[in-house]
Amino acid sequence: MPEYVAGVDVGGTTVKIGLFPRGEKPLKLWEIPTPRGYALFPAVWASIEKTLKTLDIPKEDLKAIGMGLPGPVTDDGFMPAGCINSWLQPCNAVACMERESGILCAAGNDANAAALGEMRHGAARGHENVVLLTLGTGVGSGIIVGGKLLAGSHGCAGEVGHFVVNPGETEACNCGNRGCLEQYASATGIVRSAKRFLAQEDRASVLRGKEEMLTAKDVADAAKAGDGIAMEAMEVFGKMLGLAVAHLMLTTDPEIIVLGGGVSKAGTFIIDLVEKYSTAYTHIAKERAKIVLAALGNDAGAYGAAALAEQKLET
Amino acid sequence: MPEYVAGVDVGGTTVKIGLFPRGEKPLKLWEIPTPRGYALFPAVWASIEKTLKTLDIPKEDLKAIGMGLPGPVTDDGFMPAGCINSWLQPCNAVACMERESGILCAAGNDANAAALGEMRHGAARGHENVVLLTLGTGVGSGIIVGGKLLAGSHGCAGEVGHFVVNPGETEACNCGNRGCLEQYASATGIVRSAKRFLAQEDRASVLRGKEEMLTAKDVADAAKAGDGIAMEAMEVFGKMLGLAVAHLMLTTDPEIIVLGGGVSKAGTFIIDLVEKYSTAYTHIAKERAKIVLAALGNDAGAYGAAALAEQKLET
Repeated sequence: MPEYVAGVDVGGTTVKIGLFPRGEKPLKLWEIPTPRGYALFPAVWASIEKTLKTLDIPKEDLKAIGMGLPGPVTDDGFMPAGCINSWLQPCNAVACMERESGILCAAGNDANAAALGEMRHGAARGHENVVLLTLGTGVGSGIIVGGKLLAGSHGCAGEVGHFVVNPGETEACNCGNRGCLEQYASATGIVRSAKRFLAQEDRASVLRGKEEMLTAKDVADAAKAGDGIAMEAMEVFGKMLGLAVAHLMLTTDPEIIVLGGGVSKAGTFIIDLVEKYSTAYTHIAKERAKIVLAALGNDAGAYGAAALAEQKLET
Repeated sequence: MPEYVAGVDVGGTTVKIGLFPRGEKPLKLWEIPTPRGYALFPAVWASIEKTLKTLDIPKEDLKAIGMGLPGPVTDDGFMPAGCINSWLQPCNAVACMERESGILCAAGNDANAAALGEMRHGAARGHENVVLLTLGTGVGSGIIVGGKLLAGSHGCAGEVGHFVVNPGETEACNCGNRGCLEQYASATGIVRSAKRFLAQEDRASVLRGKEEMLTAKDVADAAKAGDGIAMEAMEVFGKMLGLAVAHLMLTTDPEIIVLGGGVSKAGTFIIDLVEKYSTAYTHIAKERAKIVLAALGNDAGAYGAAALAEQKLET
């Protein structure tokens, strides 16, 4: 009788769910819209239950559910800050999900889970000292040392997105601070930089007139095509992310740094940008981590959440 | 028959050596001037041998020698960069010392060793997630996660002194980069900042006329006594170190951060300065590491080197 685990990657807009035969690739991966508040837990469980029924898998064969959540999560599943944009209040996600499902649950930060996913099945396979940087709406990270996720003592290990990389910044980050990495290296941040340069300069740019609908992809594509303003925005991205990467290299000194999230779809172009600056900012290092693109794309979170479930079963 | 280990803390000027009954405080702690080059190893061994003889301890009772060295050290004792100011060329310190002494040896970065010392016998006793920042001629750090030192994949874990915290800096750091933490938060860095402000401003200051002989202690004492220029230099110290501390809090999220080295003799005054900025730079954290002063002072390195020897015996 095959055993299964579910991997649940909770995002601000959608929840991605995967049903995994233990230790294998997913049998099925699907998405539901993210319900606000406690409704998240019964909705996710209802969706898993429905899928089990469709696939004729008895509930008893589902051994554990792992969740990746967008915010700090302590080892026992408590989210002291809830989700940063407040659509989920502080709660113990493991307790909530176990109450709904009656099944053993595990939870961790979403970027941490994704790092585990990339290590077990993706771009960081075979490595034990890994950093995954997720460049999406925000910037998350998961740091693995000796094969284990750094959980930290107060639930904020790997909050690299809120490294202050530009103390002189005048605009505020979502977190309330000014000059956080997220303000330059997320998809939102790239668009913000491009708009700033468009407003400050008169130079021609293919981005002009598109300000309202501008995406990070537009900016990256224009930069690759040689647009000066777009390139300036991407240089800011590379410089700020390169500085943060340098600090990671001089802290846990990983073997490999994986760039994931929507922004990483711009490909090796961003690797080159980040490497240029991270090398300059780690003058003392003789050797450095490889910087590579994520391999699992948007599925890394679900893979990693399943890995959290597996780990819980193994302990 | 009691067993002993030796802890050897190699500094640029002196080598501090301790002879420790296993698991206990040192029986004897002494210093010798640091010989240049390979001569370090026979000189240290000769000094240990002489002390054993004086104390009537047979050589067979010395079970291992641990060394803390000022530079990157790999797990097997290799120093890929030698010592940063080049008085020791790249070599395998464990192999060199074992050749001289015929005794089992271990080696690690000096700041890493000191962190282990503070965890086993000093200010961080009872904690497993610890960062020690050594503020001396340079800035070193030792990072402990789950009771174990982060060694890193390329020997540069914990090179916090070379975090670029001020990319706009015009003067060069010893490492060749510009804007490294060491340029502001070391004893040398505090003096440099004070001299800069003295040159830039006309304000009266008790430091004026002392420029040639200025020490970090003079600057800290003057700042505590209300001197404006000295306080500006100490604010730069607090801001730059606070930024680095914030990045450490958002990376490994330690329970406790210990400030050691000569600069820490300025006492809780520097804790307050660093806390002010590290709190501001970690807006997202609900709880943070305690920041405390080191307890073992200049002996932490020798205690930690002895701990490296103990660990080697235990494996």
